[in-house]
Amino acid sequence: MTDVVIAGIGQTTVGELWDVSLRSLAVKVMLAAVKDAGGLRPHALYVGNMLGATLSRQAHLGALLADFGGLRLGDSKDLLHREHRAGIEAETVEAGGASGGAALRQGYMAVASGLVDVALVVGVEKFTDVVGLKVEAALATATDGDFEAIQGLTPTAQAALLARRYMHEFQMPSDGLAGFALTAHANAAGNKNAMFRKAISLEAYHKAEPISDPLNMFDVAPNVDGAAALILTQAELLPKEFAHPLVRMAASASASDTLGLHDRANPLGFAAAQVSVEQALRKAGVRREQVDLFEYHDVYSIYAALSLEAAGFAPAGQGWKLAADGSIGLTGQIPCATLGGSKARGNPGGATGVYQAVEAVLQLQGRAGSNQIAGAKIAMIQCLGGPAATAVTHILERVSD
Amino acid sequence: MTDVVIAGIGQTTVGELWDVSLRSLAVKVMLAAVKDAGGLRPHALYVGNMLGATLSRQAHLGALLADFGGLRLGDSKDLLHREHRAGIEAETVEAGGASGGAALRQGYMAVASGLVDVALVVGVEKFTDVVGLKVEAALATATDGDFEAIQGLTPTAQAALLARRYMHEFQMPSDGLAGFALTAHANAAGNKNAMFRKAISLEAYHKAEPISDPLNMFDVAPNVDGAAALILTQAELLPKEFAHPLVRMAASASASDTLGLHDRANPLGFAAAQVSVEQALRKAGVRREQVDLFEYHDVYSIYAALSLEAAGFAPAGQGWKLAADGSIGLTGQIPCATLGGSKARGNPGGATGVYQAVEAVLQLQGRAGSNQIAGAKIAMIQCLGGPAATAVTHILERVSD
Repeated sequence: MTDVVIAGIGQTTVGELWDVSLRSLAVKVMLAAVKDAGGLRPHALYVGNMLGATLSRQAHLGALLADFGGLRLGDSKDLLHREHRAGIEAETVEAGGASGGAALRQGYMAVASGLVDVALVVGVEKFTDVVGLKVEAALATATDGDFEAIQGLTPTAQAALLARRYMHEFQMPSDGLAGFALTAHANAAGNKNAMFRKAISLEAYHKAEPISDPLNMFDVAPNVDGAAALILTQAELLPKEFAHPLVRMAASASASDTLGLHDRANPLGFAAAQVSVEQALRKAGVRREQVDLFEYHDVYSIYAALSLEAAGFAPAGQGWKLAADGSIGLTGQIPCATLGGSKARGNPGGATGVYQAVEAVLQLQGRAGSNQIAGAKIAMIQCLGGPAATAVTHILERVSD
Repeated sequence: MTDVVIAGIGQTTVGELWDVSLRSLAVKVMLAAVKDAGGLRPHALYVGNMLGATLSRQAHLGALLADFGGLRLGDSKDLLHREHRAGIEAETVEAGGASGGAALRQGYMAVASGLVDVALVVGVEKFTDVVGLKVEAALATATDGDFEAIQGLTPTAQAALLARRYMHEFQMPSDGLAGFALTAHANAAGNKNAMFRKAISLEAYHKAEPISDPLNMFDVAPNVDGAAALILTQAELLPKEFAHPLVRMAASASASDTLGLHDRANPLGFAAAQVSVEQALRKAGVRREQVDLFEYHDVYSIYAALSLEAAGFAPAGQGWKLAADGSIGLTGQIPCATLGGSKARGNPGGATGVYQAVEAVLQLQGRAGSNQIAGAKIAMIQCLGGPAATAVTHILERVSD
């Protein structure tokens, strides 16, 4: 099996991008990633997307984006060529909110298998252009339709139920999750691609409107537009003049859990998240203590707490304390959401897993500016679909200076 | 790279399956494939599906089907175990009508890379439970939304435009495509899983109602329900008592083309189909003449003609003659749609690519009953998304008796 490295990254600012279409958003970051990789030409395109068909009435994104990204087969650089050439392999990978992570894993497999020399992974989501209830209904397609969505359960209501249960089970105070939002917003201030570049106070948290009790506005990540891209390849294929420290994908692991939350013996134990972390650590030959940063999937603050516990950074019921006591801060024991996370960078649905990888690469290459984790060498990123019904975990490692 | 073999198959009868839900349909064939593989336990699930989110309001099918299929991690056979265990890796692959072929390719990559020992690939589609225009609108999400669907263009209208152009360009008579339907229906008579098990006459073809002129009812495959599944693994992992001749995946190739048909210099040349066939033949080390059967993607009769030409079995403008003169019949030069194809087996959208593989395996293992191609050793299968905006081609080969 070939060693897979990340040769280029691209991302766009996350937010309400009313003036950019789904395809333009994606193509922009695809070209940025190719440029960042010194012009390395992709042979396959894997798209992470969750809601294109339901919100933008656009499926079949692989062929569409390969086309609009100019990813044709053959070596001709003549844009005015007369011959009509086919485009590269292209397809979409979907696993709810974990779509970006799953697309990254597919790119990893394609290169690791030796079947694809250079893979382009793009995550893209467009939540705006439609309004309110339609978005919530589209998101609910990622829950169990026959047993959950049909009863009116949405992902946000589900997260609120988990938070309520967590408070009951572990005697967490009602503002126990505040630290996740405070950390995320503080970190986003230093990320020019983040949506909310502004620290918030505990007082602001206390004053925030409830969204789905006990979760308030700062416990829920905003569903917005964004796209991010990565070029994956084999180390030997990198251009000699490659500008950045080399980052390899040390491990990739994915697991699932019941889609219906009610089917789990312990809804507060994210079993798929736990298993995928354990597999990833084992495959990478890395101990948990060696992980320099953890990009968890904080669509809801309660997810962040449960992810820290599933990953083994805190015992059950204690994850929230890592946020409360500063352990997840940039200089803490296990820095998380280092560039704002879903909460403050913004939550671009199926693009999230690719943003996480892009942000981890920035940290490992020393390109994270004022948010740089000093000496970061190993990053763990984890992308969840719903309450960890899908959990995809990757470990990235800097292998050169 | 590891050699990938097909260790088990499962399929359900194609048709209007009003009494079976999307998930039940899929789980049924998943379990059948596991059984056919002698109980081999899958470690990853790849789902080919196109319209779950738009027609059934159900996305995130990977986790859902892994859960309902009982695909949990760990070795316990105790169904009453108390410990809640995570499920296997699972995700959906989408590429319009080529979703099933793309899921198969992902399963192939996963096993070939050595990252996954046993992969379960399932294709599933549920067109019924909703009516008429909604289906056509959902199918149109696989065309270019901003330039085609928005003008009212549907896949069927697109195919009619191609047929009209083909008649003009190559002086094909108005019933020139009839042979495709006649062959498909004749073959479906011998397939107990086909929707239309009845041969039709040329007279019936002439009398058929127009759907989108010049295409009539027999030029258009019916959009119906179905599911099929495959177990992929490495030959060394097969149970010793494996019941059937061994079939290996000799090659896998995928290419794309402009999603917008109007962007192609020659809309009648299926460039992606051509390239993926050429790549597959090269990778498999097989000459076109060695191919014993070709399962093309005949959603529309005109697609069948263009696919035969793109694959090199006929020169441009001559593909339809292979149907008219019997060359694609069971004893012809290049048998096609050997168990009915999309036209008469029925078109279960994103499940099609998996059905094609299941049918090819039946032929290669000598399990095709009255439709058996004598001595079939090499099969080519090709799955298209739209007018070959995506084209995934696989070559399967019998390696033991």
